[in-house]
Amino acid sequence: MARSDFKFHHTMRVRYAEIDAQGVVFNAHYLTYFDVGHTEYMRAAGIEYAAEVDETGIDFHLAKSVVEYKQPIKFDKLFDVCVRVARIGTSSMTNLFEIHGHGEDDLLASGETILVAANLATHRPVPVPESFVRQVRAFEGDALIKG
Amino acid sequence: MARSDFKFHHTMRVRYAEIDAQGVVFNAHYLTYFDVGHTEYMRAAGIEYAAEVDETGIDFHLAKSVVEYKQPIKFDKLFDVCVRVARIGTSSMTNLFEIHGHGEDDLLASGETILVAANLATHRPVPVPESFVRQVRAFEGDALIKG
Amino acid sequence: MARSDFKFHHTMRVRYAEIDAQGVVFNAHYLTYFDVGHTEYMRAAGIEYAAEVDETGIDFHLAKSVVEYKQPIKFDKLFDVCVRVARIGTSSMTNLFEIHGHGEDDLLASGETILVAANLATHRPVPVPESFVRQVRAFEGDALIKG
Amino acid sequence: MARSDFKFHHTMRVRYAEIDAQGVVFNAHYLTYFDVGHTEYMRAAGIEYAAEVDETGIDFHLAKSVVEYKQPIKFDKLFDVCVRVARIGTSSMTNLFEIHGHGEDDLLASGETILVAANLATHRPVPVPESFVRQVRAFEGDALIKG
Repeated sequence: MARSDFKFHHTMRVRYAEIDAQGVVFNAHYLTYFDVGHTEYMRAAGIEYAAEVDETGIDFHLAKSVVEYKQPIKFDKLFDVCVRVARIGTSSMTNLFEIHGHGEDDLLASGETILVAANLATHRPVPVPESFVRQVRAFEGDALIKG
Repeated sequence: MARSDFKFHHTMRVRYAEIDAQGVVFNAHYLTYFDVGHTEYMRAAGIEYAAEVDETGIDFHLAKSVVEYKQPIKFDKLFDVCVRVARIGTSSMTNLFEIHGHGEDDLLASGETILVAANLATHRPVPVPESFVRQVRAFEGDALIKG
Repeated sequence: MARSDFKFHHTMRVRYAEIDAQGVVFNAHYLTYFDVGHTEYMRAAGIEYAAEVDETGIDFHLAKSVVEYKQPIKFDKLFDVCVRVARIGTSSMTNLFEIHGHGEDDLLASGETILVAANLATHRPVPVPESFVRQVRAFEGDALIKG
Repeated sequence: MARSDFKFHHTMRVRYAEIDAQGVVFNAHYLTYFDVGHTEYMRAAGIEYAAEVDETGIDFHLAKSVVEYKQPIKFDKLFDVCVRVARIGTSSMTNLFEIHGHGEDDLLASGETILVAANLATHRPVPVPESFVRQVRAFEGDALIKG
């Protein structure tokens, strides 16, 4: 996978509050970067996530997250979080992430999150709403694997 | 004010996630330490805070917080957060905090938070519930300033 | 003091990781917002802070921070952190902060930080370097109180 | 794998600062819990990590982290982070983690981290120091996979 596989990125800058005694981003904050990136992805794709949840009564619960740390990221570094929804299964969604220096093709970290669609009342897994799938496909095109 | 003015303390240890590039606790985390200390204070005083809020419909909103940084606090340091409710006014509460090395009288930081009792429905300030004042006074005794 | 007293602001957006069970920013994160704002202020003022420290052997230590919480700030809110250096004393610096909705004059929080210039070798307070004062004055003009 | 496979656990309590708008621990903080657990594991195993690094000039860099979220963890929940070093390869170490309710066998989350031993001067992977392997084996016994 190359950076060119991502249609979307969100630019951020490392905060002093996020670095550790070695002057590099503490490992847990990568998941926060992914989360911010995912929120901005949804906005860019025109998906009104909170309204969708209200309407369908279905929310996604995070089931798994993976981070691969490739190079340390220093204080004040400007970077791009690349985000894509790679696959939507019956009741799950797989998001992929890469972090590169801003405007560069220089992999600093990669990762993925797997989420499960759940009925908010019963907390049981349910099929991903069709309206959601349509909106993601409209953004990702054929790169989205369905099923 | 001396450490002996505090009836209560809660012991914590500095996490690696909380230190910055200088190897000392990042300034914002002191407020998290105060918050943890305050939760444990309420537990020690036998005040079931969440149940009180449910029953009275009155919650405290944080209006102001102050931290004075006396000495840097290093990674893995074991420390005591000393907490007391110092004053309850008509609709406000003032909490005082000190951080010392564990079991020591060696001031690392001090601070205060001022909270306002508010009706959860109207968000307007209301008198601090009498039941709450009684419970704090039972714990603090005459050290608590009322009014 | 009105928003118009600030020459500089930095725009940020509330992260999901920063809100608490009430759906609003947890109190400690305001200090992180101030810190990010201060870093961006220094950049905007053309002050190369790290290089200054290397050259002079003098760094600023945070002595005190104050936050006044005026209105809760919700998830995804776009806001401006307004920052100014208000006063430089013999060996101290006072920074003022305000948080407003982005592009609005709607005070959500205010605060200040007081820092002390210290010799990195001896950890003793020293006069604020003249070069630093000059650069701040060039940015702030007569609004900066000296002494 | 069952909880009984872990010789070590460290008890923690969920902070208010760590929960999100749904009242449960935000996903990134699990990695901080793992990190705290790992620090305490090293202490329990009698491994003076910082001194080892100073002596050998070899440190571990985090290469990968995985979290599997099984059940949400609520505010104020007392929980145990179970930690073990499961495998030491030529230049890598695999740590396993489980989070259970305190004193319970009720899996809330699991995960792993993979670290690589690196020469601090050259940043190149190097064999894991023999003294480190010996100390971990003394603590874990035959449960530790070597190679």
